[in-house]
Amino acid sequence: MTNKPYSVAIIGLGAMGMGAAQSCVKAGLTTYGVDLNTTALEKLKQDSAYAVSQSAVDFADKLDAVVLLVVNAAQVNAVLFGENGLAEKLNKGAAVMVSSTISAQDAKEISQKLTNLGLIMLDAPVSGGAAKAAAGEMTVMASGSKQAFDKLQPVLNAVAGKVYNIGEEIGLGATVKIIHQLLAGVHIAAGAEAMALAAKAGIPLDLMYDVVTNAAGNSWMFENRMKHVVEGDYSPLSMVDIFVKDLGLVNDTAKSLHFPLHLASTAYSMFTEASNAGYGKEDDSAVIKIFSGIELPKKGA
Amino acid sequence: MTNKPYSVAIIGLGAMGMGAAQSCVKAGLTTYGVDLNTTALEKLKQDSAYAVSQSAVDFADKLDAVVLLVVNAAQVNAVLFGENGLAEKLNKGAAVMVSSTISAQDAKEISQKLTNLGLIMLDAPVSGGAAKAAAGEMTVMASGSKQAFDKLQPVLNAVAGKVYNIGEEIGLGATVKIIHQLLAGVHIAAGAEAMALAAKAGIPLDLMYDVVTNAAGNSWMFENRMKHVVEGDYSPLSMVDIFVKDLGLVNDTAKSLHFPLHLASTAYSMFTEASNAGYGKEDDSAVIKIFSGIELPKKGA
Repeated sequence: MTNKPYSVAIIGLGAMGMGAAQSCVKAGLTTYGVDLNTTALEKLKQDSAYAVSQSAVDFADKLDAVVLLVVNAAQVNAVLFGENGLAEKLNKGAAVMVSSTISAQDAKEISQKLTNLGLIMLDAPVSGGAAKAAAGEMTVMASGSKQAFDKLQPVLNAVAGKVYNIGEEIGLGATVKIIHQLLAGVHIAAGAEAMALAAKAGIPLDLMYDVVTNAAGNSWMFENRMKHVVEGDYSPLSMVDIFVKDLGLVNDTAKSLHFPLHLASTAYSMFTEASNAGYGKEDDSAVIKIFSGIELPKKGA
Repeated sequence: MTNKPYSVAIIGLGAMGMGAAQSCVKAGLTTYGVDLNTTALEKLKQDSAYAVSQSAVDFADKLDAVVLLVVNAAQVNAVLFGENGLAEKLNKGAAVMVSSTISAQDAKEISQKLTNLGLIMLDAPVSGGAAKAAAGEMTVMASGSKQAFDKLQPVLNAVAGKVYNIGEEIGLGATVKIIHQLLAGVHIAAGAEAMALAAKAGIPLDLMYDVVTNAAGNSWMFENRMKHVVEGDYSPLSMVDIFVKDLGLVNDTAKSLHFPLHLASTAYSMFTEASNAGYGKEDDSAVIKIFSGIELPKKGA
């Protein structure tokens, strides 16, 4: 008796998607990679992916599962249900793991459309950063049916260090991720505010960074992102505009629940201001550039 | 040849001061403990302190060094320069390590008064939490003369895991600590905001806590303080009113530097609101109680 090979397509080969795809390859899954960016496709092909393409439709009938790690709900909908959409080309019973950060409402609507086509959805946002994604140790916060968890078990084993089963209801995974992003976004903005104040006060930023990362004021995001500020390197790993979107989702969620968010609404304004000032496509640590009258470290200085 | 024993008094035996005093005892220093709270004095005496008292004046002439870990600048000034003040009773050349969180301006004024009495000051705020203090592994962010660092070396060896020498100028240590507190305070308030939103959205808080502490949204303060919320235990380790004070210092510092603080000013309002609502003496995680219309975990539930 032989096991049939398990085939999965990772759609969206950004910082997290590339790591997830590499982890699937390493776990021995028949891994397909999909992105519009041909450089990313070429890289994943060299990393021993089974096949890569700009459209998953090319191998839709081969797939047991699809993992979506595109930027937002609009892209998820375009991939699945747009022109030449993937959903209706997938085999009945295939599983779709939606790992993009989207609203609970969008998750529910997407789930309904997939169910109508005989497909299974896991509402499964992820966190952990690019390094954990590459190591197959993402944190997955998932909700969905037992059937969905079971069907995606090989993928979860490959990509996740921790899988949280939030419950059966689609939308719970999305909500937990959005609340997580509240913290992530506020922590980046707070890191920027603190480092900007340090610059204004004449404290060397490398020293401030060193103190904070060894003390109770540290956060995962401070340690990861303020290093970019210290190095003066705003090459985007995750962009300012991602947090304009994610903190927008945070505030939409709070509005739908009639709940006040003092800090997250402020952080949203900070990222939006950074985007409008022209830093939207830079690393999200570039939110520090909204502060005037300070001198920040230059790259290579 | 024998080394003369080194004598140090720790003044203020709260969460950090008690740990610092215990660490000095363990390091073999002749350790004196001072607090108004007789329970704290009794505890430190049992932990083999050389002597304890409600006033350091009782053994002022024995001391090589004093460590001040009282609550604020007013208390530092009262201990040193108030009625029956310690400063004029100390031997010339004794070192005073001011480890309370105070403004740079207060640090400078205190230093001037100590210098006039022939005493040496180290501007040396600390961080790390009670556990690190007890383990002799506090983070010390210090500024002062080489003479001050040298004279306090035995104490720094005993209490600190890391010592940052920020520079010679008194006030730099205070400023670095205040910027650190910006992060610490915003992170507690952000943790409270996120957990309150999770409660409103029907996400179990123990699960939300578990997800965040395993993902990129984590912070030292989230992990430490939101555990109290999950357990429904607001017994004060550090109180709400401490962050009303510290975020007040953060905002004073920004004002004196003509610098805007979007998040820290908001977090200050949140802690102040919690204090005015009657939670000032509870654990600082009780800032979550400013949110209405949610049910939080009860202790022992």
